Amino acid sequence: MKRALLLAAALLSSPAYADGIVDNVNGLAPTADGRVIRFKAVLIDKDGRVTRLVPSGEQPPKLSRRELKKNAGKPLYDWRIDMGGKTLLPGFIDAHGHVMALGFGTLSLDLSGARSLNEAKAMVMAYIAANPERKWVTGRGWNQEAWGLNRFPTAADLDDISAGHPIWLERADGHAGWSNSIAMREAGVTASTAAPAGGRIEKAGNAPAGVFVDAAKELIERAVPQPLAKERDAAFLQAQQRLLANGITAVADMGTSVDDWLSYRRMADIGALRVRIMSYAAGVETASRIGGKGPTPWLYDDRLRMGGVKIYLDGALGSRGAAMKAPYADAPGEKGLSFLSDTQLQNQMSRAAMDNFQLAVHAIGDRANSQVLDAIQVLSATYKGDRRWRIEHAQVIDPADLKSFGQFGTIASMQPTHQTGDRTMAEARLGPARLAGAYAWKSVLANGGKLAFGSDFPVEKPDPWDGWAAAFTRQDAQGQPPGGWRPEEAVTREQAWWAFTGGAAYAGMAEQKFGNLAPGQKADFIIVDRDPLTADPTTLRTTRVEQTWIGGEKAFDRSGGVKAPAK
Amino acid sequence: MKRALLLAAALLSSPAYADGIVDNVNGLAPTADGRVIRFKAVLIDKDGRVTRLVPSGEQPPKLSRRELKKNAGKPLYDWRIDMGGKTLLPGFIDAHGHVMALGFGTLSLDLSGARSLNEAKAMVMAYIAANPERKWVTGRGWNQEAWGLNRFPTAADLDDISAGHPIWLERADGHAGWSNSIAMREAGVTASTAAPAGGRIEKAGNAPAGVFVDAAKELIERAVPQPLAKERDAAFLQAQQRLLANGITAVADMGTSVDDWLSYRRMADIGALRVRIMSYAAGVETASRIGGKGPTPWLYDDRLRMGGVKIYLDGALGSRGAAMKAPYADAPGEKGLSFLSDTQLQNQMSRAAMDNFQLAVHAIGDRANSQVLDAIQVLSATYKGDRRWRIEHAQVIDPADLKSFGQFGTIASMQPTHQTGDRTMAEARLGPARLAGAYAWKSVLANGGKLAFGSDFPVEKPDPWDGWAAAFTRQDAQGQPPGGWRPEEAVTREQAWWAFTGGAAYAGMAEQKFGNLAPGQKADFIIVDRDPLTADPTTLRTTRVEQTWIGGEKAFDRSGGVKAPAK
Repeated sequence: MKRALLLAAALLSSPAYADGIVDNVNGLAPTADGRVIRFKAVLIDKDGRVTRLVPSGEQPPKLSRRELKKNAGKPLYDWRIDMGGKTLLPGFIDAHGHVMALGFGTLSLDLSGARSLNEAKAMVMAYIAANPERKWVTGRGWNQEAWGLNRFPTAADLDDISAGHPIWLERADGHAGWSNSIAMREAGVTASTAAPAGGRIEKAGNAPAGVFVDAAKELIERAVPQPLAKERDAAFLQAQQRLLANGITAVADMGTSVDDWLSYRRMADIGALRVRIMSYAAGVETASRIGGKGPTPWLYDDRLRMGGVKIYLDGALGSRGAAMKAPYADAPGEKGLSFLSDTQLQNQMSRAAMDNFQLAVHAIGDRANSQVLDAIQVLSATYKGDRRWRIEHAQVIDPADLKSFGQFGTIASMQPTHQTGDRTMAEARLGPARLAGAYAWKSVLANGGKLAFGSDFPVEKPDPWDGWAAAFTRQDAQGQPPGGWRPEEAVTREQAWWAFTGGAAYAGMAEQKFGNLAPGQKADFIIVDRDPLTADPTTLRTTRVEQTWIGGEKAFDRSGGVKAPAK
Repeated sequence: MKRALLLAAALLSSPAYADGIVDNVNGLAPTADGRVIRFKAVLIDKDGRVTRLVPSGEQPPKLSRRELKKNAGKPLYDWRIDMGGKTLLPGFIDAHGHVMALGFGTLSLDLSGARSLNEAKAMVMAYIAANPERKWVTGRGWNQEAWGLNRFPTAADLDDISAGHPIWLERADGHAGWSNSIAMREAGVTASTAAPAGGRIEKAGNAPAGVFVDAAKELIERAVPQPLAKERDAAFLQAQQRLLANGITAVADMGTSVDDWLSYRRMADIGALRVRIMSYAAGVETASRIGGKGPTPWLYDDRLRMGGVKIYLDGALGSRGAAMKAPYADAPGEKGLSFLSDTQLQNQMSRAAMDNFQLAVHAIGDRANSQVLDAIQVLSATYKGDRRWRIEHAQVIDPADLKSFGQFGTIASMQPTHQTGDRTMAEARLGPARLAGAYAWKSVLANGGKLAFGSDFPVEKPDPWDGWAAAFTRQDAQGQPPGGWRPEEAVTREQAWWAFTGGAAYAGMAEQKFGNLAPGQKADFIIVDRDPLTADPTTLRTTRVEQTWIGGEKAFDRSGGVKAPAK
């Protein structure tokens, strides 16, 4: 009787009587401390929130006749889906990506598959032939390192295949661009054009050679026609489809422009925004233009929020734009570029922090990382509370600086596939002496820092499976190098998983909303074709996402006629 | 029995059982055909929509015992407010205003009360003394015509009272600006600065005299610091408060910028947007940036929609910027400026219309009005359907063109207080021969055109009572001139009322949403202290709005501690 009363009371508040159940699953979810929760069903309420994960061993509750009468034939759930024992995981969260760039990448020329300069040229020619109506040929993804070219490509390399089109192609890391002579002419760039602060023009003798690094990219970009808003929307939808197909249910968008924001809102206004976007505005002024006196609320049922500012402090390692304490091993005179002085950085961070914007500072080189860590220390004296200072990439850290990651709640937002992609290049740039603090995921954790993992798409593919496997193997998709590259910096499979889910949500101030399927969180999960905890790394990388659910609603179904884009 | 069944059926579908009732009112609402509906109560549903206006003669429905039992003690309404017989009217809709400019006007120097140059100078001095922290002194509202100055003011008039501040003051009509020498210096304007196309620099000998007309305003404005987003939000709230206090529940915002839009959305995201905004973007490019491939949906429970494009075709009459067919009577060499050629205008309108944006073209002079009417005729062959081409102001129409207002669904969006404010100036500018088509409200109606009335705030006060009285008297607040100015162009009291309510909603594509308290429309209404149909014009102008309700919720209450700003 007493038990029946308790049950009846439970029924009245009815947390167990969720509106739906995703049943008969091999449910797995990581925890912050490296464990795994196993469950066989997810109960979901009307608002798309998890009310309970039914533990694997638990029997379904039986109701007494009295209880059944009380509920008068009302079914236990409004809907039930039997997943036939398939594996269900929390949706992945990519802690660092560029949503619109991913979308535009799918609409423009993708050179990431080119294995040589000649292959790249062939792809340009094919693109021009296939898109004769596009005046400007724009694209992305080249990497002269992967071509064994030992030099940057040049305008001359493109001029004989230009067919009258201006051409502008961004490097894989986004930190350099390659133009033909027509593009330089349209942009008014000549031998007398000086590189702006924070930028470099590659030279062929006295003339610009065709590659523009970091801030110098703007010299050409200002001549490239801006996309129309409807093109932005089309690009967004392309990007979203790729994210959903890879099992990504939320993303930190690093460097949202006003026009990006307008596009997200347009899509959300008509119900087309499915993936959750934690937006970091492109600079302090943009953050204020969008958010006014502070972050926006969570909008569209927790699908969109502009909560922070992305600040670029240095460039990339590949283009030697990363700001290093000592010269590059393979370019003795060069130490890279820090775009901001200590004072400028602190001023910008301070302007954002005083309006309660979260800070996400891009820092690749050890000098840049030192600068941000110092700035965080200085600003933490003024801006107290839960600030969650983020360093984006934190790619090369002076080992002496590692302990600072354990202070002031600093978050290292890192990208495992950068390690596997950069390995050979990083060895060349850094030399053996500076590798200790490079891609040092485990050291960050060991020093008490917080990890959030992402892909930096479109620089790397928006593929969390690749990233996850790289994170605990330090090997690329081909299993190289054997035993892993500096395997002492690998994290465990479970730690990596957390950094791609709950850790990334925490880094985005979203852990109350989504990230690990805890009761009260949004029911963002994926159905996949294998168990990622028993799969070997190679098999893990080829996991197929069959369904992606966001807020208790199916947003992607591979079998449902939804075309699956490339990974 | 049969009747009881019918009643029971009515109860089940229960249109009469609204969630609330605003009872015991002297309810009055205009109709499109110049009649007046009288009602004693408004029934409002959960969504803030009118379910029924209870006619003045109707008794409340009596329920049978059976019906009462069926409803088991459920009250007839969830809430009931007894208004004690006060007058209830539909909220006013201002068909042409500038929301953010109204707000900034309240935060900057308001010169509209200055009756002489010396008074204006005294107000500048007082403002500088009261706001020493503001580097730039900006303001609005001067009108040299009202000062009997017979010339524009000059920089020299301000230089001796500048106290080191750059000063920039917009004319009442917004089509000219008056700067001091410091402002010109900061803006880099010298004797060699040329006026841009569509603009004019007033000269003192060879040097700029200090007044910049139409497109030339930009020469100074580019040096004025842009307001911060939080200042925009503060300005918006000021504007909204003034609108609500005057009984305005919806407004067509003419020339919304991207930053204006971001401010409206910020306010709406936190529930602070109360007034309904029918937004017309500042130009085609802005419309596309905001709306993408077309108008936005109605957002925030029908409080915000960007549905059209505002295009400026000419300037104002006061500054002789209005494009006339024949020279100004008081400046024989001048015919004003048409900013766009016929082809340019049609191209811009076509670009907007092909994406289904509504067109709202500013045309003051008879030449500009002819241009738009011709463009509408040309474009109507291509862009069919319900286009509702709007001409904003339609101030001086060649009588030969009047018949065109009856074609292609053209709407004349006119401002009655411009007539009373401009009267003497218009006579001087136009001479007696061209007055027949000036402020020709009745002729527009007589030719089958559709009227929407507004105030053009902050050019005139956002005061629909003034506008309403002017519309049927052709007299200003002082009753001048006796008998009215060209009284043959007055419309009836009821026609004017409709143009300020349902007509303005129709012009904004909103007549399904709000405008006349028809069942299904949003319950946007005001409680006022007198009956506007029996009040004489002078008394009508001083009507006090006691409460303003939007969507069935009280948004303003004069007695409720909500400070009432100036009219």
